[in-house]
Amino acid sequence: MAVVTEGTITDLAVQRWSTAHSPRQAELMTALVRHLHAYAREVGLTEEEWAAAVEWLTATGRVSDDKRQEFILASDVLGLSMLVVQLNHRFAADATPATVLGPFHIDGSPAAPFGHDMSDGVAGTPLFVTGRVLDLDGTPLPDVVLDVWQADADGTYEAQLPQTDEARLRAKYRTRADGTYCVRTIAPRGYAIPMDGPVGDLIRTTDISYYRPAHIHFLIDHPGHEKLITHLFRQGSEFLDSDVVFGTKGELIVPFAEEPAGASPDGGTLDEPYLHAEFDFVLQPGAADGERS
Amino acid sequence: MAVVTEGTITDLAVQRWSTAHSPRQAELMTALVRHLHAYAREVGLTEEEWAAAVEWLTATGRVSDDKRQEFILASDVLGLSMLVVQLNHRFAADATPATVLGPFHIDGSPAAPFGHDMSDGVAGTPLFVTGRVLDLDGTPLPDVVLDVWQADADGTYEAQLPQTDEARLRAKYRTRADGTYCVRTIAPRGYAIPMDGPVGDLIRTTDISYYRPAHIHFLIDHPGHEKLITHLFRQGSEFLDSDVVFGTKGELIVPFAEEPAGASPDGGTLDEPYLHAEFDFVLQPGAADGERS
Ligand SMILES: [Fe+2]
Ligand SMILES: [Fe+2]
Repeated sequence: MAVVTEGTITDLAVQRWSTAHSPRQAELMTALVRHLHAYAREVGLTEEEWAAAVEWLTATGRVSDDKRQEFILASDVLGLSMLVVQLNHRFAADATPATVLGPFHIDGSPAAPFGHDMSDGVAGTPLFVTGRVLDLDGTPLPDVVLDVWQADADGTYEAQLPQTDEARLRAKYRTRADGTYCVRTIAPRGYAIPMDGPVGDLIRTTDISYYRPAHIHFLIDHPGHEKLITHLFRQGSEFLDSDVVFGTKGELIVPFAEEPAGASPDGGTLDEPYLHAEFDFVLQPGAADGERS
Repeated sequence: MAVVTEGTITDLAVQRWSTAHSPRQAELMTALVRHLHAYAREVGLTEEEWAAAVEWLTATGRVSDDKRQEFILASDVLGLSMLVVQLNHRFAADATPATVLGPFHIDGSPAAPFGHDMSDGVAGTPLFVTGRVLDLDGTPLPDVVLDVWQADADGTYEAQLPQTDEARLRAKYRTRADGTYCVRTIAPRGYAIPMDGPVGDLIRTTDISYYRPAHIHFLIDHPGHEKLITHLFRQGSEFLDSDVVFGTKGELIVPFAEEPAGASPDGGTLDEPYLHAEFDFVLQPGAADGERS
């Protein structure tokens, strides 16, 4: 080993990690060494700051478990999650853009027919979300599954509540032969990210707003197309300009139109006023079946 | 907020974290955002790799506790700890260089007189370490405390053993009026870093040697001088060229001379052969009293 000095240490460490057995691992680790060292050099990291970082990382790991993932939250608020989404989903301009998955998705939501009310009695303003799922050339796609989940009118997800047997504000809809879908639910509310952990401590050292605007999550994983993980945001809701996880995109902001009691988009009638959002999802053509990630 | 795209996300995140209330925190956080994003962009980080990183960070936090600090170990093997040491201790060329503290220092070691045997019956080859503590201009410094700790002949530290009442292979020596010190101990052995955690998992993806050469730790925190945290390494020991934490420096490698039974450096006699290392520590002039970190 050559002499270890402030001038040589980075090259020595890069050289060492370049012995990784897989070329990709060597690329990932040597770039990590270079960027970590460049950071420490640029800011002139003190030993106290280094120790504080070690302590913060440890606390962040220790607060994480099966239900809470504080490192994902950290990645979200640093804009890293949204950057990774964009690096990996460079869709055509006309395709619906992707955004972050977030920590609240639950696998295995129940299949729901056209117009099914996934709020199932949870209090809130009735909301219909309707539209079509289309190919990039505008062809409606039948039999596309839309995995939908959202917070309630207080901003709380099922994943944040004690476990129950029944799905709450989540369901898997399917497009009809003409590519149309219809979700019945309640209007979600924007919410604060968890602020009682190390990420909250970090955010409180700044003026950063720790809220997300009101939104509904959609996951559409259809054969022959890129998997689409996205949200629809309620036009006019608070925090659209300051989404703490950088997840908001203009193309995904839709009006929640106020409609009077009467005929409703599911083909029935409602005896109270309701909201109605219309949105067509446009899928990016993608990997063949079985190759999707 | 401007439109979030692959092109704008980094500037948006930098802008947001620049609202930190302290200028230093703003500098640290905005640089962190820039370097994290630059890393993700450069390697084209996939979502699977990002998820694996989150999992690794979480496991690293969860394995850490009061006795084990896996993030420090990670920082060590990436060369970051040694870089931070060097950024913060730019000593004169003639001063004894600093190296990493390591995870095994225990506060409050007992005071020991000149020549005290800190091995206190622990099995091993007797070793004397003698020399002086000097000012940068060569003036011997009296009454300087040398906090000394080391592994045993199996490579194990007291901090790795069940807790006991008595200090094991650690003590605080003091220089005499002429600046001389004399440590009696046993020869330490090089050792492997803990390989049963996430850092071990990472190292096993490479050909990196996970050993440290045989060494003794010294901490000298003397008024009017920079605190010196350093090691002495045994000349000719294995792993000098591949120290897994990059802690080895040529200036710190000293011969452990083989001496026959008879007169010993503490002024007494020994009825078995022993080893003898000689080293003068040269302290960097530094902050006035009470300002040392
Ligand atoms: Fe959400
Ligand atoms: Fe050590």
